[in-house]
Amino acid sequence: MLPRETVLYFGDTARVPYGAKSKETVTRFSFEIATFLVRQDVKCLLVACNTASSYALEPLQRQLDIPVVGVIEPAAQAAVAASPHGRIGVIGTLGTVGSAAYPHAIDRVAPGAHVISHACPLFVPLAEEGMLDHPATRLIAEEYLRELRASPIESLILGCTHYPLLAPLLHELMGPAVTLIDSGAEAARSLATLLEHRGQLAAHARPEHRFFLSDEPRNFKRIAQTFLGGELPPVHVVDQTDVPWFERAHP
Amino acid sequence: MLPRETVLYFGDTARVPYGAKSKETVTRFSFEIATFLVRQDVKCLLVACNTASSYALEPLQRQLDIPVVGVIEPAAQAAVAASPHGRIGVIGTLGTVGSAAYPHAIDRVAPGAHVISHACPLFVPLAEEGMLDHPATRLIAEEYLRELRASPIESLILGCTHYPLLAPLLHELMGPAVTLIDSGAEAARSLATLLEHRGQLAAHARPEHRFFLSDEPRNFKRIAQTFLGGELPPVHVVDQTDVPWFERAHP
Repeated sequence: MLPRETVLYFGDTARVPYGAKSKETVTRFSFEIATFLVRQDVKCLLVACNTASSYALEPLQRQLDIPVVGVIEPAAQAAVAASPHGRIGVIGTLGTVGSAAYPHAIDRVAPGAHVISHACPLFVPLAEEGMLDHPATRLIAEEYLRELRASPIESLILGCTHYPLLAPLLHELMGPAVTLIDSGAEAARSLATLLEHRGQLAAHARPEHRFFLSDEPRNFKRIAQTFLGGELPPVHVVDQTDVPWFERAHP
Repeated sequence: MLPRETVLYFGDTARVPYGAKSKETVTRFSFEIATFLVRQDVKCLLVACNTASSYALEPLQRQLDIPVVGVIEPAAQAAVAASPHGRIGVIGTLGTVGSAAYPHAIDRVAPGAHVISHACPLFVPLAEEGMLDHPATRLIAEEYLRELRASPIESLILGCTHYPLLAPLLHELMGPAVTLIDSGAEAARSLATLLEHRGQLAAHARPEHRFFLSDEPRNFKRIAQTFLGGELPPVHVVDQTDVPWFERAHP
């Protein structure tokens, strides 16, 4: 969607998953990462994690001098657009669902919409294990989605980075009447609009992406390939000694 | 096993799970936690995480002035004792299995023993989700244990904190001929022996345990109850501002 933009991506692989961690801890981690990226002169920050967006987006927007885009608002808008009667389902981590960030965002766009949420903590580890269409994943998904399948929802927000990998299974279980909303794709669209309005779209023909990790875990290559297909970018593991991680970049 | 000892327990809930993280990162985290505990004058350190024991035990033993006990050696000894023909299975995280810490430890006790290992990354999230005897857990366990069940092993080391919660299922799948070895219980036994030999057993009748966490995650109470039963100790969340976490306590 933004083929000319250079992406500086940071994956906090030393400390993920964020899904069940507290608001305070996720906010602290988010500020540390934002500080790292801002020092590399990014023009805009996309908080591409639903849990971090749920907890830390507003304090980041207040504190940083660059535009900060999250994944919640764009997905909420897309779900409202896809739900003429305002009946929307949300799945996400314990943090995203517990924070009620989606119902609040949907209520701002479409007051009175009916939102049903369910946390699906095992979807991330199942996706990372590559069990995208495993009978066990199917059993667990049937359990997590029981209430959502019994409700007349029109769209279902996949409110976590990993869930689009499970989209074929989720589509099959929810049926063709339910539109699946990919929060990452919606956020990228929203970012494109923002950069265009600000006249900040890149003119370079050749972006030079840089990928940073706080750790290179054992299963990294396999998981990255699951997400990105065959092509793996070179990654830089950020050492604590290199980086002002712990400079207390608090909200 | 050590009813008079005061336990200072640290759970790195802000950064777990360690299972797939790199040796370097797990070792750094282990040194940070060890530094925190040593400053509180502990007489002995038990590295109660199998992944941390696999990676960081030796550097911790070299660096610290107090005895440091891990979970690998005690479980390896118990498995050898329970396996007359030296046929031993090991299950653990990607890190524990990938490090080959168990085969090496078993080889030191019983050279020539035959060890079969298999990583079971989903067992921790399944146990934390409380799915201890769920059909999906059973399907996944059957898959993980396929090679181990087809082998004539005499004992199976449950090489991860969480796996004893799955012991009834694992026992059923492995059959009565396979002795399950609980690495935590064996480590506690080994610690008792060490303290007795050193004349360091506590004389107090009333221990005053202290439980520290680096984060209080959303699902903490439920998970702690799964492990400990109804009784929950009071916990202190250690704030980064209180603690010399990041003082570069490197090996």
